[in-house]
Amino acid sequence: MSTSLSRPLKRSRATPLRQSKMLRTRTSQPDLSVGFAPFWKILVWEQEDFQGNCQEFTSECHNIQERGFTNVRSLRVESGAWVGYEHHGFEGQQFVLERGRYPRWDSWSGSNAYHVERLMSFRPVFSASHRSSHITIYEHENFLGRCVDFQDDYPSLRAMGWCNNEVGSMRVQSGAWVCYQFPGYRGYQYIMECDRHSGQYQRWKNWGSHAQSPQIQSIRRIQQ
Amino acid sequence: MSTSLSRPLKRSRATPLRQSKMLRTRTSQPDLSVGFAPFWKILVWEQEDFQGNCQEFTSECHNIQERGFTNVRSLRVESGAWVGYEHHGFEGQQFVLERGRYPRWDSWSGSNAYHVERLMSFRPVFSASHRSSHITIYEHENFLGRCVDFQDDYPSLRAMGWCNNEVGSMRVQSGAWVCYQFPGYRGYQYIMECDRHSGQYQRWKNWGSHAQSPQIQSIRRIQQ
Repeated sequence: MSTSLSRPLKRSRATPLRQSKMLRTRTSQPDLSVGFAPFWKILVWEQEDFQGNCQEFTSECHNIQERGFTNVRSLRVESGAWVGYEHHGFEGQQFVLERGRYPRWDSWSGSNAYHVERLMSFRPVFSASHRSSHITIYEHENFLGRCVDFQDDYPSLRAMGWCNNEVGSMRVQSGAWVCYQFPGYRGYQYIMECDRHSGQYQRWKNWGSHAQSPQIQSIRRIQQ
Repeated sequence: MSTSLSRPLKRSRATPLRQSKMLRTRTSQPDLSVGFAPFWKILVWEQEDFQGNCQEFTSECHNIQERGFTNVRSLRVESGAWVGYEHHGFEGQQFVLERGRYPRWDSWSGSNAYHVERLMSFRPVFSASHRSSHITIYEHENFLGRCVDFQDDYPSLRAMGWCNNEVGSMRVQSGAWVCYQFPGYRGYQYIMECDRHSGQYQRWKNWGSHAQSPQIQSIRRIQQ
């Protein structure tokens, strides 16, 4: 079952009520970001449903056309966390890609105003860590105004007491995060990493080339 | 800031590094499911962007047309967790609705093969509880085969060691959950509650009238 790098889950043929406590105490993840090479592995196909040309990558791809593909229309993440982009050069909409199968665009595209039916570039998210993730969000640009620390997933910032639909700036102390435009992890995605921009995201225009507003209503750690 | 029912977050004008541990120890939620009436409150509009006719609800709506609306095209969840449906009578695609603003269909609709541009019915999710949620998933129908307990959010079941893209059956011991077709909380949604069907979901055809396959690749607790 799965790779030896993933945390194995308890299995049983009986209802494993007694396991719950054990699992509960082991929700923290092993740090997979160091010590294994190549840990990151993704398979991409030129057609939907894992059809057509296929290539395996263990590191970033700046432009899939330089590898003889017209685009990527389905993929499978074997290990590690990745981010896929609408355009080559890591531009345009961002889509977090965690382990699993993505048979077509609607499996990676959030509920956006327009659909991205193919990916053109992608790269590993080296700093993703469920065990140790820490971000501070600020009301205004340049780390000013009211601020709140997060170390967990929040499908609704408003439910947690953040009375605004917007975030002015962010500082990632550790790990990698994905912030979403709407509650419940929907809408435009912004990938925030401690090892890019020194973890400093001073204003919404730094969040990505697709950012059109400071609206953020949910936030979660990226799964390695 | 927000209502008195929500857990207030620490605020500071300095970077609140010292708060992190405090917040960390308080990630469990107060149990909001009892003791306040009406706790659940949703505002719905007939047009996108909070335009046109508006009504407030504190309990379920079986058919918005019986309230003089043609449909719901935007909404704001003031308190509690809700689920919206594609059709009246709580049929069709399900969309979890947590606190926040939903200006148009793409803010609640996941990345589905077809879009649901309006909601026709909705109801509170009474059992949602971040503090105490517990589900067991099974490899086969009728609670047979390999099984795993969850009490936390998992954006990728595969990353957690579940080597299958499918789930045969589920038993909700406590709380309410949303299961997703694809990794990263995308695709078709299935709302699973401890107080409906006695928490027993014996086969994928019980998951909802929109269920077309047993495919599930991510799962999370619903935020109250």
